[in-house]
Amino acid sequence: MSGIKSRVLRIGEMGEFAFIRSIQDGSHFSPEGLIKGIGDDCAVIGPYQDRVFLITTDLLVEDIHFIWDRISPVDLGQKAVAVNLSDIAAMGGIPRHLFLSLAIPPAMGVETLHSFYQGIKAMCERYDTNVLGGDTSASPDGLTINVTAIGEARGDEVLFRSGAKAGDKIYLTGTLGDSAAGLRLIKEEFSAPAPLAAVLKEAHNRPQPQVEAGRVIAQSGLATAMIDVSDGVLSDLGHVCGASGVGGILFESALPISNSLKALAEINNFNPYELALSGGEDYQLLFTVPREDAGQFETIFQENSSSPIYCLGEITGEEGIKIVRPGGVREEVKVEGFDHFSGR
Amino acid sequence: MSGIKSRVLRIGEMGEFAFIRSIQDGSHFSPEGLIKGIGDDCAVIGPYQDRVFLITTDLLVEDIHFIWDRISPVDLGQKAVAVNLSDIAAMGGIPRHLFLSLAIPPAMGVETLHSFYQGIKAMCERYDTNVLGGDTSASPDGLTINVTAIGEARGDEVLFRSGAKAGDKIYLTGTLGDSAAGLRLIKEEFSAPAPLAAVLKEAHNRPQPQVEAGRVIAQSGLATAMIDVSDGVLSDLGHVCGASGVGGILFESALPISNSLKALAEINNFNPYELALSGGEDYQLLFTVPREDAGQFETIFQENSSSPIYCLGEITGEEGIKIVRPGGVREEVKVEGFDHFSGR
Repeated sequence: MSGIKSRVLRIGEMGEFAFIRSIQDGSHFSPEGLIKGIGDDCAVIGPYQDRVFLITTDLLVEDIHFIWDRISPVDLGQKAVAVNLSDIAAMGGIPRHLFLSLAIPPAMGVETLHSFYQGIKAMCERYDTNVLGGDTSASPDGLTINVTAIGEARGDEVLFRSGAKAGDKIYLTGTLGDSAAGLRLIKEEFSAPAPLAAVLKEAHNRPQPQVEAGRVIAQSGLATAMIDVSDGVLSDLGHVCGASGVGGILFESALPISNSLKALAEINNFNPYELALSGGEDYQLLFTVPREDAGQFETIFQENSSSPIYCLGEITGEEGIKIVRPGGVREEVKVEGFDHFSGR
Repeated sequence: MSGIKSRVLRIGEMGEFAFIRSIQDGSHFSPEGLIKGIGDDCAVIGPYQDRVFLITTDLLVEDIHFIWDRISPVDLGQKAVAVNLSDIAAMGGIPRHLFLSLAIPPAMGVETLHSFYQGIKAMCERYDTNVLGGDTSASPDGLTINVTAIGEARGDEVLFRSGAKAGDKIYLTGTLGDSAAGLRLIKEEFSAPAPLAAVLKEAHNRPQPQVEAGRVIAQSGLATAMIDVSDGVLSDLGHVCGASGVGGILFESALPISNSLKALAEINNFNPYELALSGGEDYQLLFTVPREDAGQFETIFQENSSSPIYCLGEITGEEGIKIVRPGGVREEVKVEGFDHFSGR
C-alpha cells in the first residue's frame, strides 16, 4: 500500500473566508424576530416596541491577535472591549451589555489578570456598558478572550453595510494609518523619536470606538450605509460595496493622514497613503450619504458631534474599487481581507 | 541578590471561584433595563413589552473540556449548543439565537470541522435556534469554542436560583449519574457490555437540554427556583440554597437512578447513589415548588410535559445541605464546585 494515503483537506489550506461561506448557509431556523444574521458588523434582532438589539462577538487569541511583549494587560482589556463596541457603533447603536469568556493559562499572574480586567471595566464604564457575566476556564496554552457585546438602537435608525447607492458620498470619521504605523513601530520595523512613537503606538493599542459619531450619523436619518474600518479602508469599503452591489472611487489626496503619520513617513521614507489604504485597525466609521443630502448632513454632524469628518470619494454603479492617484490616474484595486489561517 | 525574587501569585493558586468573586463586583454601570447580571444560569435583560432576554455563554477548551479521542465532532457540536440551551431552559426560557466563536488549529481537517458544524446546526434546528454569526480565528494550539446563546421568556415567568423557600419540595426532571458513568466508561475506568456502555456514553456525549420541561415548569407559575444540574446535584442544589439563603435535605433513596446505571454499578461494584450525588453534566432541571402547591403542580406538569419528575427532598430554613441515608442517618455534606484551574 506504499504511497497511498487519504488526502485530508486542512482548514489552513481551505482558508478562513471559504470556510465561513461554507457554513453560513441554512443556519436560520426561525426567522421571526430576526432582522439580520451573518454578514454585517452585528446581528440584529427585534423589533421590540421600537427597539432592536445589535449583537457582536470577537475572539482574541494569544500569539494570533496579540503578543504580550507588545501590549500591556490594561490596554489589551480596553482593546478587547473597544473592538466590539466599534461594531455596535458601526450600525448606529448604543452599547449596553458585555459578556467575557476567558481561557486562562494557570501560570498567569493574578496581577496581570486584574490589570486586564481593569482595562475591561474602564472601557465599559466609559461607554455605560454592563459586564453581565461570561465563562472562565483554564487554558493548556495561551490566553484566549471572547467578548460578546449587545447594543440597542431604534429600529428605523440602524445602518447596514448594504444600503450604499451610486452617487453617494463616502465619509470617514478620522485619520487612517496611525494604528498600522503604531504596530510597525511596536514590531521595530520603523523607528521614531519617543514622543512621536508613543502617539502612534497608542493609536494601535488604545483604539476608541466611535460610538458618539455613530449615533449622530444614524440619527441624522440621511446616511445609507456604515461600517467600521477594522480590516483597512480598502477592504472595508469593499465590504460595503459588495453588500450593496455597487462600486467605489477613493481619491488618494482626500485620505486623512495625521501629522504624526506624515512625520513618521518622512523619517522612515515610506508613502503614508499606502499605509492609510491597506493598514487595518483604525476603528473609524466609514459611511455613505446621498450627494443631494451631503450639505444638510455635514451641518447636522458638525453641530452634534465632536469628531471630524472627511469625504474620501463616492459610490459608483460599476462594481469594483478604484483609486484616483494624485496625478489623476485611476487604478482598479484588488481587495481581500486578512485570512487568519494563511496569515495573508 | 541571590534568592530574592518577587512572588507572583498565579491564577492556578488563587482558584477559579476566588478570581470570579474578585472581578464581579462593580461591573454594572447602567442598571436600567438590567434584571440579573452575574450569578445565575443566564443574565436577564429587559423588560421589552412583556418579554425579557436570557443570555448565557460557555467556553469549551480542547484538553480541558473535551478530548478528541473521547467524543466525535458531531457530538461535540451538539453538546456545545446543548449546554448553553440548558442554561436557558433552567430559567424557563425559549432559545432563539446563537453565536459561535472558534479558534481553529490550521492543521484541523475540514471534514472534522464540517461534522462539528453539522452537530451545531442539528441541535439548533431541533430547538428552532438561529446561528446568527460569531468569529473564526486560527489557534496556535488546540480548538477553542465559545458559544453565546440568547433566549426569551415572559418577564413574569422567569425562574431564578434565588427564590427557594423553607418548606418547598425539591424536584428533578430526570435520572442522575448516567453522564458521569458514561465518562468513566469512556475513560475506561469502568467496563460494561457494549449495548449498556453505548447508552451511558450517549448520556455523556449527547445531553439534551430540557427546554420543554423548563417551559412547563415556568408557565405553571408555581415553581420558586430552578437550575440545571451541570456541576452535580449536590453542588447545584448548593447554588440554589446559597442564592436563596436556605438549606436543603436530599433523601438518598429518592434519587432517580436509571436501570442502566444500576446494572453498571453491579458489574463494577460501586454505589450508584454516590455517582448520582457528585457526578456532573446531567443537564436535568432541579427546581422547587411550595409544599402546598405540589399536588396542583404535579398535575399540571404531567398533563403538559413528556418528562418524568422526581421529588428528591425539601428546602429547609437552616443553611447547609444534608443527605438522609437509607437507614435514616442525616449527614451534612460539604459542597464545592469543580475548579478548572486546580482540577479539583
